[in-house]
Amino acid sequence: MIEALEPLVDGGRFAAKAVAGEPLSVRADVFAHGDDLVRAFVRHRRAGTRRWTVAPMAPIGNDRFEAAVVLPEPGHHQIEVLGEVDALAMWRRDATRRAAAGGFDPNDPVIGSRLLAEADELVDGRLGTLADELGRVDGTGPLAAVLAALDELDEVIASRPPATTATPASSELPVLAERPLAAFSSWYECFPRSASSVAGQHGTLADLANRLDYVAELGFDVLYLPPIHPIGTTARKGRGNSPVAGPDDVGSPWAIGSRAGGHTAVAPELGTLADFDELVDEAASCGIEIALDIAFQCSPDHPWVRKHPEWFAHRPDGTIACAENPPKRYEDIYPLDFTTSDREGLYAALLDVVLFWVRRGVRVFRVDNPHTKPFDLWEWLIASVRKVDPGVVFLSEAFTRPKVMHRLAKLGFDQSYTYFAWRDHKDEIVAYFEELAHGPGRTYFRPNVWPNTPDILAKSLQHGGRASFVARLVLAACLSANYGIYGPVFELLVDEPAAPGSEEYADSEKYEIRQLDVGDPRSIRDVVRRVNAARRAHPALQRDGSLRFHRVDNDRLVCWSKRDERTGDAVLCVVNLDPEWPQSGFVELDLGALGLDWDAAYEVRDELDDAAYTWTGPRNFVLLDPARSNAHVLALAPAARSPEPSATFPPSGRGR
Amino acid sequence: MIEALEPLVDGGRFAAKAVAGEPLSVRADVFAHGDDLVRAFVRHRRAGTRRWTVAPMAPIGNDRFEAAVVLPEPGHHQIEVLGEVDALAMWRRDATRRAAAGGFDPNDPVIGSRLLAEADELVDGRLGTLADELGRVDGTGPLAAVLAALDELDEVIASRPPATTATPASSELPVLAERPLAAFSSWYECFPRSASSVAGQHGTLADLANRLDYVAELGFDVLYLPPIHPIGTTARKGRGNSPVAGPDDVGSPWAIGSRAGGHTAVAPELGTLADFDELVDEAASCGIEIALDIAFQCSPDHPWVRKHPEWFAHRPDGTIACAENPPKRYEDIYPLDFTTSDREGLYAALLDVVLFWVRRGVRVFRVDNPHTKPFDLWEWLIASVRKVDPGVVFLSEAFTRPKVMHRLAKLGFDQSYTYFAWRDHKDEIVAYFEELAHGPGRTYFRPNVWPNTPDILAKSLQHGGRASFVARLVLAACLSANYGIYGPVFELLVDEPAAPGSEEYADSEKYEIRQLDVGDPRSIRDVVRRVNAARRAHPALQRDGSLRFHRVDNDRLVCWSKRDERTGDAVLCVVNLDPEWPQSGFVELDLGALGLDWDAAYEVRDELDDAAYTWTGPRNFVLLDPARSNAHVLALAPAARSPEPSATFPPSGRGR
Repeated sequence: MIEALEPLVDGGRFAAKAVAGEPLSVRADVFAHGDDLVRAFVRHRRAGTRRWTVAPMAPIGNDRFEAAVVLPEPGHHQIEVLGEVDALAMWRRDATRRAAAGGFDPNDPVIGSRLLAEADELVDGRLGTLADELGRVDGTGPLAAVLAALDELDEVIASRPPATTATPASSELPVLAERPLAAFSSWYECFPRSASSVAGQHGTLADLANRLDYVAELGFDVLYLPPIHPIGTTARKGRGNSPVAGPDDVGSPWAIGSRAGGHTAVAPELGTLADFDELVDEAASCGIEIALDIAFQCSPDHPWVRKHPEWFAHRPDGTIACAENPPKRYEDIYPLDFTTSDREGLYAALLDVVLFWVRRGVRVFRVDNPHTKPFDLWEWLIASVRKVDPGVVFLSEAFTRPKVMHRLAKLGFDQSYTYFAWRDHKDEIVAYFEELAHGPGRTYFRPNVWPNTPDILAKSLQHGGRASFVARLVLAACLSANYGIYGPVFELLVDEPAAPGSEEYADSEKYEIRQLDVGDPRSIRDVVRRVNAARRAHPALQRDGSLRFHRVDNDRLVCWSKRDERTGDAVLCVVNLDPEWPQSGFVELDLGALGLDWDAAYEVRDELDDAAYTWTGPRNFVLLDPARSNAHVLALAPAARSPEPSATFPPSGRGR
Repeated sequence: MIEALEPLVDGGRFAAKAVAGEPLSVRADVFAHGDDLVRAFVRHRRAGTRRWTVAPMAPIGNDRFEAAVVLPEPGHHQIEVLGEVDALAMWRRDATRRAAAGGFDPNDPVIGSRLLAEADELVDGRLGTLADELGRVDGTGPLAAVLAALDELDEVIASRPPATTATPASSELPVLAERPLAAFSSWYECFPRSASSVAGQHGTLADLANRLDYVAELGFDVLYLPPIHPIGTTARKGRGNSPVAGPDDVGSPWAIGSRAGGHTAVAPELGTLADFDELVDEAASCGIEIALDIAFQCSPDHPWVRKHPEWFAHRPDGTIACAENPPKRYEDIYPLDFTTSDREGLYAALLDVVLFWVRRGVRVFRVDNPHTKPFDLWEWLIASVRKVDPGVVFLSEAFTRPKVMHRLAKLGFDQSYTYFAWRDHKDEIVAYFEELAHGPGRTYFRPNVWPNTPDILAKSLQHGGRASFVARLVLAACLSANYGIYGPVFELLVDEPAAPGSEEYADSEKYEIRQLDVGDPRSIRDVVRRVNAARRAHPALQRDGSLRFHRVDNDRLVCWSKRDERTGDAVLCVVNLDPEWPQSGFVELDLGALGLDWDAAYEVRDELDDAAYTWTGPRNFVLLDPARSNAHVLALAPAARSPEPSATFPPSGRGR
């Protein structure tokens, strides 16, 4: 019987996610009836190939077995669990007990000799002549001697492959292995049109190329651009989302398409396809990937509106339906009609859009509102793209209901925006990230956490200034392996909303050019640089599964750690959620989660200011003053042990 | 999209369990992309029939829907969840918002009229002329009037069946509906051979018939007999499991088979098949069902050993392998060899055994050590028996590893023995019954809880006398809807083990006749009678799903409640685990779980001694003295409310 396979998503309907080249823990209950002993195996192969790689699974108690599987390359893989009854082990167990009790059953050597000969064939004769010797055994003493000799060969015996009669589990485990960027990425979003260094001038892709050094210096590895395509003029929105655009208004980049082209064109005011290619190349030389925005919607001026009117919903009066959230209407945007009679043609055109940019070297996409398009479009489109390049990464921008967000992650999106922007209080933060790291979605839903976006000037940033920005930055970047900021408004602490209570930015860059001085001395770019450097230096911060919150006796202080099992690297973070007042308290660390002994002394060094402290035991004092810094990102290292380690219970924590 | 179906066992590989005629909660996440509104339906039919019964599901939040399905008769059923996008509801929502904002979109009446006409067809014209009226609407006012008229018809609109285009979930929910006895039963086990009222005389089935009134008076509805078949003489065990039997030793009933017959014969010393038939009839007239023991193993004298030697494992030296747990050997028992080349013949013979007794009116079986036989035997055998009579109930006596016990429950056993006999401390009891009532096994694993069996004189009974027996009785009978005792040793407080530290009974009835006086004044039969009467009187005690433990500030006092949602019936139990000393404390009741308002006064009446108390609020004092009784089984009834209910927080509990 093989049950309770892990990681299994919806009974195998969807693939679990893994990182190519990294161990993936596969588990299953494997058992037989009665007191039968069993062996369990895991085997895997790339989808579409024939040869399995087989490995034994180790028992971890309560009839559960585990193996760490390494899928060598990106792409879809099949994993299967096998089980078989271990007749040889059962015979050894029973014969040993009988021999120990002093009895001799002449059937023992006969049965054992046969089982041993079978096993010997599977290990290419490495059991030597033991089967023959056993066949000649004639008493308890000699039998015990052979059994003891077998004990010496335990490893050889355990190493034998499963017999051809081994039972496979009824369901396979589909797993998508991905390149490391899918699991660990630092995103920087900005509008190319604001990138000119000449005041009042429309920025270009070339201007943006000049800002690559800045982005690289900050430590980001993904530079994400809102749509770079021609913007429609019909019903164009003016500044501040005004329904009427002035002659100089640049329009929303999400109103895609004009006479200059659609989803595969570059807006003339930004440059040319050649400029784009150059940007991609220059970014690559800085260690940065360019991410594009996939927004499957059209301005009324999009070439598709004339060429493929059947791809749009027509109302009884013959007009094309514009985007709408009644009573609000978005006249500058026509949604596509996925119920069109030419569904095949439309889907193919959308895939072609993505493949067009993939062929130009884009391997990261942020998908705009995927939840407003059919699920089957995404499942098919993402799978189709992965056939061309399994390394393409898709981020789902679905700020919607939990089940819908999870479905999108299951069907293929690598990363997903989250509710982080609306999780302000300690209990909300702890509960939400516990769910993300340890809930049922952990096998397929990879959070990508943003303190702000062009659509979201989070409430938590609107009051508190620098202290709030630093707190939200450290929370995002150190709670989640994937995170991003929308800059330069973020590092420049821009916090004015369009209206009281609104989450829209005043002077929103969605509708106008906004030139800001990234060299402004009030910028927190140095904190951003240090946080990203810590993320690169610490494997612990590059995955989400090890997240552990630690108790602090102060509800404004959040404390958590992450640890990389392979290297032992551990990072402990403390954030003060109060932007106004110093907060202090005692943290009570789960030392086991940090890989520390209960009585060990250890050094913690703050990656944000290089201050170092020596701590002992679980209870330690912390104080964070928003006037200086309201976050610790502490690298842990066991300190040299004192010559006479205490044999008593640990003393209460020494102050920092 | 339809996800997260409940109750679903291993992706639909096994059936969940339900009670015929009772509501079963079916749940699923049902959603579509974007802001599409959906309708969800559940439909069910008996396996093998064609016509579905369809019912709407109600939204319960977070895209989850629920319906209570009543499967009318015992047997296997299919349940399916369906979903569809509700275009009419979406149009109503959007048109209403547009109308409320004062705008008039001439497309609204056109689209709405079409959708309404479609809906009207599904409700046989009960929407009247509204579709036509809508078609003639020419402004916001008239449109708003029609929308308001539609609101009046909400129920009619909601009642329309799903369209033929509705999407079914990818997996069906197989459910086994069973007769109520599978979910609620009180078992009494005893050895017929001890039932004679004549001292020293071997009891018979006729003697047992004379004890039916006693068993009925105690309130049991299942009388379970250890094997009643002829007992082998070869290697027969003597008293106290001695390897040598004296000439008068009666042997173990589990060493089945002699020249007098095998699994379909009655031991001559117990009577005849006619006597058995009469016992079944007389029991029925007392409201008692006879349960037989299915022990698929043979004494060396079983007719099958000669007739079907191929059904037994032969060792290299030609001897038949006896049962063994090395170095122990059980020479009086030959296990069957389920790997026999005549597997088909053997399986058919075993099914015939069960059907033989089913044809004689037996509808309850306790299966001995099912975990030592192949899982596929049981799955096939139980399904085959259910084809003949879906009301047959199987109890699994598998005291083994959790995964094995659960697998047996999944593949068809209705009830399962548990680890209750080894759960003594409060934390063990709470954790174990929380798992049984609310863990993942709750949909298929029905506990049947025994304080003792012929194999288990639990440690908890060996010290403490009457107080311990009463505590364990009330725990078993009121924590679990299915329970049993092995009597009359239980009610007569027999507590002497075979040896210190042993869980075997001294003078075990498994190997000898043991005549006891059920009229002994020290008997706790009156407590047993009251406990069983309470179980019959209170629907709350007849199911397990509502179990709720309540806090008590004393680790020797366990407090729990059960509640029947349909009738509102609630029972609150408190047990003192200390057999020596009085224990007292404050219980802190979850009043919501009891269906009580936080400030209500209510009467609790003890079903064990008819004492009544008036309590108010969650905090109440309890004291249990083992010298009197160390259990409360309190029936709850809301007391007449005081004329001026307190508007402040509830006072702390009044003493009992």
